[in-house]
Amino acid sequence: MPQNTYRAINFAEKLGQIHEHWQPRVMAELNDYQIKIVRIEGDFIWHDHPETDEAFLVIEGSLRIDFRDGSVIVGPGEMFVVPKGKEHKPFAEKEVSMLLIEPRGTLNTGHEGGARTAQNDVWV
Amino acid sequence: MPQNTYRAINFAEKLGQIHEHWQPRVMAELNDYQIKIVRIEGDFIWHDHPETDEAFLVIEGSLRIDFRDGSVIVGPGEMFVVPKGKEHKPFAEKEVSMLLIEPRGTLNTGHEGGARTAQNDVWV
Repeated sequence: MPQNTYRAINFAEKLGQIHEHWQPRVMAELNDYQIKIVRIEGDFIWHDHPETDEAFLVIEGSLRIDFRDGSVIVGPGEMFVVPKGKEHKPFAEKEVSMLLIEPRGTLNTGHEGGARTAQNDVWV
Repeated sequence: MPQNTYRAINFAEKLGQIHEHWQPRVMAELNDYQIKIVRIEGDFIWHDHPETDEAFLVIEGSLRIDFRDGSVIVGPGEMFVVPKGKEHKPFAEKEVSMLLIEPRGTLNTGHEGGARTAQNDVWV
């Protein structure tokens, strides 16, 4: 059988194609989940995801996720899972690049809508 | 309201608690999925997961995943999703540390069983 060369997904290469903040891009699917990559900087809006947990894995920078009752700092080589239904607001004083893992169809603003809602299901 | 300090999951800290190869440890759950961390070295057995895709995210080292029709090399800052039902055999010439993302209950050897099957659902 001829040998195929499969290619890994390289985060730095994908980030090189992303020039906007707060616009998650899909890199891969895992069953009905998507693994997204995003650059963020500054403040976001309060929102939650009533149907799903959401995983944040930081590649570069220092992510702060604010909750109504506290906060968490997530740095490179670290992750945090925000439980379903828990209100949160990501914040990055300087630019952060990170992965998001969540079910296909999850919007970045949950059900809040508005100007900060990114187009969903855009691949990089 | 008193402010809670939430803690991120740190991969290096978790790896510091793992001293065996081929024994995935659960770090977090995302709905009914688990995010695991594992050290591997050497060769594994051919297997597949008929029910699920499986994501590999490499932290350190160079992972090779062999398929019946080719292979892929996955390095630090890279990932690969092995499609459901596709036979594969992970291989690490030198030690590799990596994350696995898959549904809770997924065994490391699929349905092959045998000596290489790790105890499932062990947390770190």
